[in-house]
Amino acid sequence: MKRVEFFYDLSSPYSYLGATQINALAERCGAEAVWKPFVLGAVFKATGNVAPATVAAKALGMYKDLTRWAQHYGVPFQMSSRFPVNAMKAMRLCVAAERDGKGKEMGRACFDALWVKDLDITDDGVLKEICTKVGVDPEKSVAACEDPAIKLKLREYTEDAVKRGAYGAPTFFVGSELFWGNDRLHFVEAELRK
Amino acid sequence: MKRVEFFYDLSSPYSYLGATQINALAERCGAEAVWKPFVLGAVFKATGNVAPATVAAKALGMYKDLTRWAQHYGVPFQMSSRFPVNAMKAMRLCVAAERDGKGKEMGRACFDALWVKDLDITDDGVLKEICTKVGVDPEKSVAACEDPAIKLKLREYTEDAVKRGAYGAPTFFVGSELFWGNDRLHFVEAELRK
Repeated sequence: MKRVEFFYDLSSPYSYLGATQINALAERCGAEAVWKPFVLGAVFKATGNVAPATVAAKALGMYKDLTRWAQHYGVPFQMSSRFPVNAMKAMRLCVAAERDGKGKEMGRACFDALWVKDLDITDDGVLKEICTKVGVDPEKSVAACEDPAIKLKLREYTEDAVKRGAYGAPTFFVGSELFWGNDRLHFVEAELRK
Repeated sequence: MKRVEFFYDLSSPYSYLGATQINALAERCGAEAVWKPFVLGAVFKATGNVAPATVAAKALGMYKDLTRWAQHYGVPFQMSSRFPVNAMKAMRLCVAAERDGKGKEMGRACFDALWVKDLDITDDGVLKEICTKVGVDPEKSVAACEDPAIKLKLREYTEDAVKRGAYGAPTFFVGSELFWGNDRLHFVEAELRK
Protein backbone atom coordinates (compact mmCIF):
# COMPACT_ATOMS: atom_id res chain seq x y z
CA MET A 1 0.00 0.00 0.00
CA LYS A 2 1.35 3.44 -0.93
CA ARG A 3 2.00 5.87 1.89
CA VAL A 4 2.02 9.61 2.21
CA GLU A 5 3.77 10.97 5.27
CA PHE A 6 2.26 14.18 6.62
CA PHE A 7 4.70 16.16 8.75
CA TYR A 8 2.77 18.83 10.63
CA ASP A 9 3.27 21.41 13.35
CA LEU A 10 0.04 22.16 15.21
CA SER A 11 1.02 25.84 15.44
CA SER A 12 1.13 26.13 11.63
CA PRO A 13 -2.22 27.18 10.13
CA TYR A 14 -1.18 25.82 6.72
CA SER A 15 -0.60 22.47 8.47
CA TYR A 16 -4.19 22.70 9.76
CA LEU A 17 -5.38 23.21 6.17
CA GLY A 18 -3.36 20.18 5.09
CA ALA A 19 -4.81 18.16 7.97
CA THR A 20 -8.35 18.80 6.72
CA GLN A 21 -7.49 17.28 3.32
CA ILE A 22 -4.84 14.58 3.65
CA ASN A 23 -6.96 11.66 4.88
CA ALA A 24 -9.55 11.97 2.12
CA LEU A 25 -6.79 12.48 -0.46
CA ALA A 26 -4.97 9.34 0.67
CA GLU A 27 -8.20 7.35 0.70
CA ARG A 28 -9.18 8.26 -2.84
CA CYS A 29 -5.68 7.22 -3.99
CA GLY A 30 -5.87 3.92 -2.11
CA ALA A 31 -2.95 5.06 0.03
CA GLU A 32 -2.28 5.39 3.74
CA ALA A 33 -1.77 8.79 5.39
CA VAL A 34 0.88 8.63 8.13
CA TRP A 35 0.71 11.62 10.46
CA LYS A 36 3.96 12.79 12.05
CA PRO A 37 4.18 15.86 14.28
CA PHE A 38 7.43 17.82 13.99
CA VAL A 39 8.75 21.01 15.53
CA LEU A 40 8.75 23.76 12.91
CA GLY A 41 10.90 26.08 15.04
CA ALA A 42 13.63 23.43 15.08
CA VAL A 43 13.27 22.98 11.31
CA PHE A 44 13.72 26.73 10.82
CA LYS A 45 16.75 26.73 13.10
CA ALA A 46 18.33 23.78 11.28
CA THR A 47 17.75 25.18 7.78
CA GLY A 48 18.06 28.95 8.30
CA ASN A 49 14.46 29.45 7.16
CA VAL A 50 12.13 31.88 9.00
CA ALA A 51 8.43 31.92 9.81
CA PRO A 52 6.43 33.79 7.14
CA ALA A 53 4.65 35.93 9.73
CA THR A 54 7.95 37.57 10.75
CA VAL A 55 7.56 39.80 7.67
CA ALA A 56 4.68 42.18 8.39
CA ALA A 57 3.41 42.46 4.78
CA LYS A 58 3.61 38.68 4.39
CA ALA A 59 1.67 38.15 7.62
CA LEU A 60 -1.15 40.35 6.32
CA GLY A 61 -1.19 38.47 3.03
CA MET A 62 -1.14 35.18 4.93
CA TYR A 63 -4.25 35.93 7.01
CA LYS A 64 -6.21 36.71 3.84
CA ASP A 65 -4.77 33.68 2.07
CA LEU A 66 -5.69 31.29 4.90
CA THR A 67 -9.28 32.45 4.78
CA ARG A 68 -9.39 31.95 1.02
CA TRP A 69 -8.08 28.36 1.39
CA ALA A 70 -10.57 27.54 4.14
CA GLN A 71 -13.42 28.78 1.94
CA HIS A 72 -12.00 26.90 -1.03
CA TYR A 73 -11.92 23.65 0.97
CA GLY A 74 -15.22 24.39 2.71
CA VAL A 75 -13.70 23.99 6.18
CA PRO A 76 -14.04 26.23 9.24
CA PHE A 77 -11.06 28.37 10.20
CA GLN A 78 -10.33 31.22 12.54
CA MET A 79 -6.97 32.80 13.17
CA SER A 80 -5.80 31.92 16.67
CA SER A 81 -6.04 34.86 19.06
CA ARG A 82 -2.83 33.53 20.66
CA PHE A 83 -0.72 33.28 17.48
CA PRO A 84 2.16 32.41 17.48
CA VAL A 85 1.31 29.47 19.72
CA ASN A 86 3.69 27.13 21.57
CA ALA A 87 2.33 23.74 20.53
CA MET A 88 5.16 21.64 21.96
CA LYS A 89 3.14 19.92 24.69
CA ALA A 90 0.18 19.30 22.41
CA MET A 91 2.49 17.73 19.84
CA ARG A 92 3.93 15.44 22.49
CA LEU A 93 0.34 14.50 23.28
CA CYS A 94 -0.06 13.51 19.61
CA VAL A 95 3.05 11.32 19.84
CA ALA A 96 1.77 9.78 23.10
CA ALA A 97 -1.58 9.01 21.46
CA GLU A 98 0.23 6.82 18.90
CA ARG A 99 0.62 4.26 21.71
CA ASP A 100 -3.17 4.05 21.79
CA GLY A 101 -3.39 3.95 17.98
CA LYS A 102 -4.93 7.44 18.06
CA GLY A 103 -2.14 9.63 16.66
CA LYS A 104 -4.15 10.96 13.73
CA GLU A 105 -7.28 11.49 15.79
CA MET A 106 -5.31 13.44 18.40
CA GLY A 107 -3.64 15.54 15.69
CA ARG A 108 -6.95 16.39 14.12
CA ALA A 109 -8.60 17.17 17.47
CA CYS A 110 -5.73 19.48 18.50
CA PHE A 111 -5.87 21.27 15.13
CA ASP A 112 -9.61 21.83 15.56
CA ALA A 113 -9.12 23.08 19.12
CA LEU A 114 -6.54 25.62 17.95
CA TRP A 115 -7.74 26.70 14.49
CA VAL A 116 -11.50 26.27 14.72
CA LYS A 117 -12.41 26.75 18.38
CA ASP A 118 -9.53 29.12 19.23
CA LEU A 119 -8.76 27.22 22.45
CA ASP A 120 -5.55 27.52 24.47
CA ILE A 121 -3.69 24.28 23.72
CA THR A 122 -0.93 25.15 26.19
CA ASP A 123 -3.48 24.60 28.97
CA ASP A 124 -3.57 21.15 30.60
CA GLY A 125 -7.32 21.40 31.18
CA VAL A 126 -7.90 21.97 27.47
CA LEU A 127 -5.55 19.11 26.57
CA LYS A 128 -7.38 16.75 28.93
CA GLU A 129 -10.73 17.65 27.39
CA ILE A 130 -9.26 16.87 23.97
CA CYS A 131 -8.05 13.49 25.32
CA THR A 132 -11.53 12.62 26.55
CA LYS A 133 -12.99 13.51 23.18
CA VAL A 134 -10.40 11.41 21.34
CA GLY A 135 -10.95 8.49 23.72
CA VAL A 136 -7.62 8.23 25.54
CA ASP A 137 -6.94 8.53 29.26
CA PRO A 138 -6.58 12.26 30.02
CA GLU A 139 -4.36 12.03 33.12
CA LYS A 140 -2.07 9.35 31.73
CA SER A 141 -1.77 11.04 28.33
CA VAL A 142 -0.95 14.51 29.65
CA ALA A 143 1.56 12.97 32.09
CA ALA A 144 3.17 11.12 29.14
CA CYS A 145 4.15 14.49 27.65
CA GLU A 146 6.97 14.55 30.22
CA ASP A 147 8.13 11.05 29.28
CA PRO A 148 11.66 11.28 27.79
CA ALA A 149 10.77 8.61 25.22
CA ILE A 150 7.89 10.76 23.93
CA LYS A 151 10.08 13.86 23.81
CA LEU A 152 12.74 11.88 21.96
CA LYS A 153 10.25 10.54 19.41
CA LEU A 154 9.13 14.08 18.53
CA ARG A 155 12.78 15.12 18.12
CA GLU A 156 13.37 12.09 15.91
CA TYR A 157 10.44 12.95 13.63
CA THR A 158 11.82 16.48 13.33
CA GLU A 159 15.38 15.41 12.62
CA ASP A 160 14.19 12.83 10.10
CA ALA A 161 12.20 15.47 8.20
CA VAL A 162 15.14 17.89 8.14
CA LYS A 163 17.52 15.14 7.01
CA ARG A 164 15.18 14.34 4.14
CA GLY A 165 15.06 17.98 2.99
CA ALA A 166 12.16 19.63 4.86
CA TYR A 167 12.32 23.40 5.45
CA GLY A 168 8.71 24.32 6.24
CA ALA A 169 5.29 23.00 7.23
CA PRO A 170 3.34 21.11 6.27
CA THR A 171 5.72 18.77 4.46
CA PHE A 172 4.50 15.68 2.64
CA PHE A 173 6.64 12.78 1.51
CA VAL A 174 5.76 10.07 -0.96
CA GLY A 175 8.88 7.94 -0.65
CA SER A 176 11.75 10.38 -1.11
CA GLU A 177 9.64 12.93 -3.00
CA LEU A 178 9.13 16.05 -0.88
CA PHE A 179 6.16 18.40 -1.23
CA TRP A 180 5.92 21.60 0.79
CA GLY A 181 2.62 23.24 1.59
CA ASN A 182 -1.07 22.40 1.45
CA ASP A 183 -0.97 24.23 -1.89
CA ARG A 184 1.02 21.32 -3.36
CA LEU A 185 -1.52 18.61 -2.51
CA HIS A 186 -2.40 18.25 -6.20
CA PHE A 187 1.22 17.25 -6.80
CA VAL A 188 1.07 14.79 -3.86
CA GLU A 189 -2.05 13.25 -5.38
CA ALA A 190 -0.40 12.95 -8.82
CA GLU A 191 2.61 11.26 -7.21
CA LEU A 192 0.40 8.75 -5.37
CA ARG A 193 -1.43 7.91 -8.61
CA LYS A 194 1.82 7.23 -10.55
CA MET B 1 -13.81 45.54 -18.31
CA LYS B 2 -12.25 43.79 -15.30
CA ARG B 3 -8.48 43.99 -14.95
CA VAL B 4 -5.87 41.80 -13.36
CA GLU B 5 -2.51 43.45 -12.74
CA PHE B 6 0.44 41.10 -13.05
CA PHE B 7 3.51 42.38 -11.20
CA TYR B 8 6.52 40.36 -12.30
CA ASP B 9 10.29 40.31 -11.96
CA LEU B 10 11.97 38.64 -14.93
CA SER B 11 14.55 37.06 -12.61
CA SER B 12 11.81 35.23 -10.69
CA PRO B 13 11.09 31.77 -12.12
CA TYR B 14 7.67 31.71 -10.44
CA SER B 15 6.93 34.96 -12.29
CA TYR B 16 7.82 33.14 -15.52
CA LEU B 17 5.30 30.43 -14.61
CA GLY B 18 2.69 33.11 -13.95
CA ALA B 19 3.52 34.75 -17.29
CA THR B 20 2.73 31.54 -19.15
CA GLN B 21 -0.78 31.49 -17.66
CA ILE B 22 -2.06 35.00 -17.02
CA ASN B 23 -3.13 36.06 -20.51
CA ALA B 24 -5.22 32.95 -21.15
CA LEU B 25 -6.69 33.19 -17.65
CA ALA B 26 -7.70 36.83 -18.18
CA GLU B 27 -9.16 36.05 -21.59
CA ARG B 28 -11.38 33.22 -20.35
CA CYS B 29 -12.68 35.56 -17.63
CA GLY B 30 -13.34 38.38 -20.11
CA ALA B 31 -10.76 40.48 -18.28
CA GLU B 32 -7.64 42.39 -19.27
CA ALA B 33 -4.18 41.36 -18.04
CA VAL B 34 -1.99 44.38 -17.31
CA TRP B 35 1.69 43.46 -17.11
CA LYS B 36 3.88 45.53 -14.78
CA PRO B 37 7.56 44.77 -14.21
CA PHE B 38 8.79 45.47 -10.68
CA VAL B 39 12.09 45.03 -8.87
CA LEU B 40 11.82 42.12 -6.45
CA GLY B 41 15.07 43.02 -4.70
CA ALA B 42 13.62 46.42 -3.82
CA VAL B 43 10.40 44.75 -2.62
CA PHE B 44 12.43 42.47 -0.34
CA LYS B 45 14.40 45.45 0.97
CA ALA B 46 11.23 47.45 1.64
CA THR B 47 9.39 44.62 3.40
CA GLY B 48 12.20 42.71 5.11
CA ASN B 49 11.40 39.59 3.09
CA VAL B 50 14.18 37.44 1.59
CA ALA B 51 14.56 35.42 -1.60
CA PRO B 52 13.55 31.76 -1.11
CA ALA B 53 16.77 30.49 -2.65
CA THR B 54 18.83 32.03 0.18
CA VAL B 55 17.84 28.98 2.27
CA ALA B 56 19.72 25.99 0.82
CA ALA B 57 17.04 23.38 1.57
CA LYS B 58 14.36 25.68 0.18
CA ALA B 59 16.37 26.26 -3.00
CA LEU B 60 16.57 22.50 -3.58
CA GLY B 61 12.84 22.14 -3.01
CA MET B 62 12.23 25.09 -5.32
CA TYR B 63 14.08 23.60 -8.30
CA LYS B 64 12.02 20.44 -8.04
CA ASP B 65 8.82 22.40 -7.53
CA LEU B 66 9.42 24.63 -10.57
CA THR B 67 9.83 21.58 -12.77
CA ARG B 68 6.60 20.10 -11.40
CA TRP B 69 4.70 23.31 -12.19
CA ALA B 70 6.13 23.52 -15.72
CA GLN B 71 5.02 19.91 -16.36
CA HIS B 72 1.63 20.64 -14.79
CA TYR B 73 1.12 23.63 -17.12
CA GLY B 74 2.71 21.87 -20.09
CA VAL B 75 5.22 24.66 -20.66
CA PRO B 76 8.98 24.48 -21.26
CA PHE B 77 11.31 25.45 -18.42
CA GLN B 78 14.94 25.19 -17.57
CA MET B 79 16.67 26.66 -14.56
CA SER B 80 18.87 29.55 -15.62
CA SER B 81 22.56 28.64 -15.53
CA ARG B 82 23.17 32.24 -14.36
CA PHE B 83 20.71 32.28 -11.43
CA PRO B 84 20.36 34.64 -9.62
CA VAL B 85 20.16 36.96 -12.62
CA ASN B 86 20.28 40.76 -12.66
CA ALA B 87 17.24 41.55 -14.80
CA MET B 88 17.19 45.30 -14.23
CA LYS B 89 18.07 46.34 -17.78
CA ALA B 90 15.71 43.80 -19.34
CA MET B 91 12.90 45.07 -17.12
CA ARG B 92 13.59 48.64 -18.26
CA LEU B 93 13.33 47.30 -21.80
CA CYS B 94 9.86 45.98 -20.90
CA VAL B 95 8.87 49.43 -19.64
CA ALA B 96 10.33 51.08 -22.76
CA ALA B 97 8.34 48.68 -24.96
CA GLU B 98 5.10 50.01 -23.44
CA ARG B 99 5.67 53.15 -25.56
CA ASP B 100 5.33 50.93 -28.62
CA GLY B 101 2.33 49.10 -27.14
CA LYS B 102 4.49 45.98 -26.76
CA GLY B 103 5.01 45.74 -23.00
CA LYS B 104 3.44 42.31 -22.63
CA GLU B 105 5.16 40.91 -25.71
CA MET B 106 8.53 42.14 -24.47
CA GLY B 107 7.91 40.66 -21.03
CA ARG B 108 6.98 37.30 -22.48
CA ALA B 109 9.96 37.31 -24.89
CA CYS B 110 12.41 38.17 -22.09
CA PHE B 111 10.93 35.42 -19.87
CA ASP B 112 11.37 32.89 -22.67
CA ALA B 113 14.94 34.05 -23.32
CA LEU B 114 15.81 33.57 -19.66
CA TRP B 115 13.77 30.56 -18.53
CA VAL B 116 13.40 28.54 -21.73
CA LYS B 117 16.47 29.35 -23.83
CA ASP B 118 18.84 30.08 -20.91
CA LEU B 119 20.15 33.23 -22.62
CA ASP B 120 22.12 36.00 -20.91
CA ILE B 121 19.61 38.85 -20.62
CA THR B 122 22.25 41.18 -19.19
CA ASP B 123 23.88 41.20 -22.66
CA ASP B 124 22.92 44.03 -25.03
CA GLY B 125 23.25 41.76 -28.07
CA VAL B 126 20.72 39.33 -26.59
CA LEU B 127 18.38 42.19 -25.68
CA LYS B 128 18.58 43.59 -29.23
CA GLU B 129 17.72 40.21 -30.70
CA ILE B 130 14.70 40.05 -28.40
CA CYS B 131 13.68 43.54 -29.62
CA THR B 132 13.84 42.44 -33.24
CA LYS B 133 11.70 39.41 -32.47
CA VAL B 134 9.14 41.54 -30.60
CA GLY B 135 9.09 44.10 -33.41
CA VAL B 136 10.54 47.21 -31.77
CA ASP B 137 13.66 49.15 -32.79
CA PRO B 138 16.63 47.40 -31.15
CA GLU B 139 19.04 50.36 -30.93
CA LYS B 140 16.41 52.84 -29.75
CA SER B 141 14.89 50.43 -27.25
CA VAL B 142 18.15 49.39 -25.61
CA ALA B 143 19.23 53.05 -25.47
CA ALA B 144 15.91 53.88 -23.77
CA CYS B 145 16.97 51.72 -20.81
CA GLU B 146 19.18 54.64 -19.76
CA ASP B 147 16.32 57.13 -20.05
CA PRO B 148 15.57 58.55 -16.56
CA ALA B 149 11.84 58.49 -17.32
CA ILE B 150 12.01 54.72 -17.97
CA LYS B 151 14.03 54.11 -14.81
CA LEU B 152 11.54 56.20 -12.86
CA LYS B 153 8.55 54.29 -14.25
CA LEU B 154 10.05 50.97 -13.10
CA ARG B 155 10.64 52.45 -9.64
CA GLU B 156 7.05 53.71 -9.58
CA TYR B 157 5.65 50.27 -10.41
CA THR B 158 7.76 48.80 -7.62
CA GLU B 159 6.75 51.40 -5.05
CA ASP B 160 3.09 51.11 -6.03
CA ALA B 161 3.16 47.34 -5.50
CA VAL B 162 4.85 47.67 -2.09
CA LYS B 163 2.41 50.39 -1.02
CA ARG B 164 -0.48 48.07 -1.92
CA GLY B 165 0.95 45.21 0.15
CA ALA B 166 3.23 43.19 -2.14
CA TYR B 167 6.08 41.21 -0.57
CA GLY B 168 7.03 38.70 -3.28
CA ALA B 169 6.73 37.81 -6.95
CA PRO B 170 4.66 37.31 -8.90
CA THR B 171 1.95 39.46 -7.32
CA PHE B 172 -1.49 39.77 -8.86
CA PHE B 173 -4.07 42.43 -8.04
CA VAL B 174 -7.75 42.43 -8.86
CA GLY B 175 -8.63 45.88 -7.58
CA SER B 176 -7.26 45.97 -4.04
CA GLU B 177 -7.24 42.17 -3.65
CA LEU B 178 -3.66 40.88 -3.56
CA PHE B 179 -2.65 37.37 -4.62
CA TRP B 180 0.92 36.14 -4.24
CA GLY B 181 2.36 33.41 -6.40
CA ASN B 182 1.46 31.52 -9.57
CA ASP B 183 0.04 28.92 -7.15
CA ARG B 184 -2.79 31.32 -6.30
CA LEU B 185 -4.03 31.80 -9.88
CA HIS B 186 -7.15 29.76 -9.08
CA PHE B 187 -8.02 32.41 -6.48
CA VAL B 188 -7.30 35.18 -9.03
CA GLU B 189 -9.67 33.48 -11.45
CA ALA B 190 -12.39 33.13 -8.81
CA GLU B 191 -12.03 36.82 -7.97
CA LEU B 192 -12.36 37.85 -11.64
CA ARG B 193 -15.51 35.73 -11.98
CA LYS B 194 -17.22 37.31 -8.96
